[in-house]
Amino acid sequence: MIFSGASMEYRKLKDEDKDGSTVEDDIENLNGRPLLAPPNTTGSSYNDHPKWKTKSIVTLLLTLLTSSQSILIVWSKGAGKYEYSVITANFSVEALKCILSLLALARIWRKDGVTEDNKLSTSLNEVILYPIPAALYLVKNLLQYYIFAYVNAPSYQILKNLNIISTGVLYRIILKRKLSKIQWAAFILLCAGCTTAQLDSSSDRVLQTPIQGWMMAIVMALLSGLAGVYTEAIMKKRPSRNINVQNFWLYVFGMVFNAMAIFVQDFDAVMNKGFFYGYTWITMLMILNHALSGIAVSMVMKFADNIVKVYATSVAMLLTALVSMCFFEFHFSLAFFLGSTVVSLSVYLHSIGKEQSRAK
Amino acid sequence: MIFSGASMEYRKLKDEDKDGSTVEDDIENLNGRPLLAPPNTTGSSYNDHPKWKTKSIVTLLLTLLTSSQSILIVWSKGAGKYEYSVITANFSVEALKCILSLLALARIWRKDGVTEDNKLSTSLNEVILYPIPAALYLVKNLLQYYIFAYVNAPSYQILKNLNIISTGVLYRIILKRKLSKIQWAAFILLCAGCTTAQLDSSSDRVLQTPIQGWMMAIVMALLSGLAGVYTEAIMKKRPSRNINVQNFWLYVFGMVFNAMAIFVQDFDAVMNKGFFYGYTWITMLMILNHALSGIAVSMVMKFADNIVKVYATSVAMLLTALVSMCFFEFHFSLAFFLGSTVVSLSVYLHSIGKEQSRAK
Repeated sequence: MIFSGASMEYRKLKDEDKDGSTVEDDIENLNGRPLLAPPNTTGSSYNDHPKWKTKSIVTLLLTLLTSSQSILIVWSKGAGKYEYSVITANFSVEALKCILSLLALARIWRKDGVTEDNKLSTSLNEVILYPIPAALYLVKNLLQYYIFAYVNAPSYQILKNLNIISTGVLYRIILKRKLSKIQWAAFILLCAGCTTAQLDSSSDRVLQTPIQGWMMAIVMALLSGLAGVYTEAIMKKRPSRNINVQNFWLYVFGMVFNAMAIFVQDFDAVMNKGFFYGYTWITMLMILNHALSGIAVSMVMKFADNIVKVYATSVAMLLTALVSMCFFEFHFSLAFFLGSTVVSLSVYLHSIGKEQSRAK
Repeated sequence: MIFSGASMEYRKLKDEDKDGSTVEDDIENLNGRPLLAPPNTTGSSYNDHPKWKTKSIVTLLLTLLTSSQSILIVWSKGAGKYEYSVITANFSVEALKCILSLLALARIWRKDGVTEDNKLSTSLNEVILYPIPAALYLVKNLLQYYIFAYVNAPSYQILKNLNIISTGVLYRIILKRKLSKIQWAAFILLCAGCTTAQLDSSSDRVLQTPIQGWMMAIVMALLSGLAGVYTEAIMKKRPSRNINVQNFWLYVFGMVFNAMAIFVQDFDAVMNKGFFYGYTWITMLMILNHALSGIAVSMVMKFADNIVKVYATSVAMLLTALVSMCFFEFHFSLAFFLGSTVVSLSVYLHSIGKEQSRAK
């Protein structure tokens, strides 16, 4: 349960280890640049590709990687229990992402030379913000151990959909971005649709969740939303700053936090059996996949936003379930069909809302 | 089961006994008058009140009457089985509506005198269209007896939501009215939301419905949609024609068809026990309620349209369930909450779509 929970939170741990406590400085920049402006009309020109193209590619990438990620989890479960230390795997993901960021940076330095935007060294002022999302996630992760005293596992999966609402609300409040009426309606539909798709005969038990369970679920949703919104703020604080440098610092703190976790929780096992005990080629594939999807989340935060991230991961959830139905003989339910219909219409309405904002 | 089914189809029988086979003559008029135009900008002036006011009042009326109607059905069930002949009750409803239409006409004749628009006599050409929806309903009612060979009762309740889609499609094709993209999305959401609200542990059995069951359900939905669309066409064929005259002719054919049904099905019981055997004051209340909601449907068809009717009856379905939860200790389910949320957002999106059409 906790293993599986930890695995599902996996990507988030890695990729929400980011922050932006001096968000206030940013707000001006963010507001000055209309969120849904047509390509190439944005003030900032942190890359040469049309913005919508980059956005589409990173969104597609995130959707595909997230889908295959959950399928790998199901697959590795099909082969039995996890035989390896999940925390060492988390650490490996962070390390791999660090290496990939450095490799990308090395290529850029060879090509363009070291500039103000792509140099690795940074000010204390800048670097001090990066561990905050990691801290938020740490608190959320601690809460996760306690919430199961009040909430059963299927109910927890349903309550996690509160993340969608909390992300929308914090996106509005903290980043001060506006969503149109249609887009708000679409966002609530996304939450309702995802929950509907997960309905089964035990779902109504969520209604018996005690008030403590609800409060903890709401706090966890807010922490998760905050981590996402902080990450977006930090990635966009300096639009011209090279994403690989930003990623490098985020992932360094991810490594630090995971190293601490290994010392506290898995020190003996790692000492006795070795760091990579129990790793199989599926474990390797999962680590590679998590690293790549972690980088995709960073790119979505930099070039798109939290709303796009939520849509991408929700659609990925449905794709995963569909693929699972084909390959793992999962049950196809009417609730899943209805939920998917609502989610699809939500995506459609969001894009209509976007078109209309552009037209204005 | 058939009793209960008949009761639920009750209002429809009464109020879809209407038609409009020479719809083609109409189309020009209908197209000439924009469906979602702001009040008082419509070409025709068949009444002096602002159109939106009439529309809102009849819609509210239909919603309230439909809600209380289902509650009366639950209530009368709580008191035991139906002790009376449902067909004689249907006939009584038709007769009561005829009387109410004539009373209303008498008042108008006293006030305004007999004019071309409010005279009761009519041409064969006009009157020949009125029995068509009644005929459509007859076929649908016959099918209803056969469909239970392929479809179980809870699945039938779910399949009835296909009516929403068939009404939208036929409204577009036959009446040639346009819905905006947002309104189409809202309409599909309405269908998904209503179905979600009805989900329970046995709902997935609908997926095992054989192909014959699906075909019959689709044909029934099309017949029901056709009856509704024909009624709207006939009511709007002559916008200046007094609604009470149109109602009178519709209800006369309703009486004729129900009299035929009594002869075929309940002749012996009525002969032995009397026409009003088993009637209680709840029966009387139900008959009054059905008569009034029947008239409300006619008014919605005349002053609003089928889309408004579908929204009103869907919202009424949810209101009924909510009231039932309070008074009859029905189970409050997560599915009901999610379905109601989706239906509410559908209503909201429909109104946004309407505003935008007006703004154009």
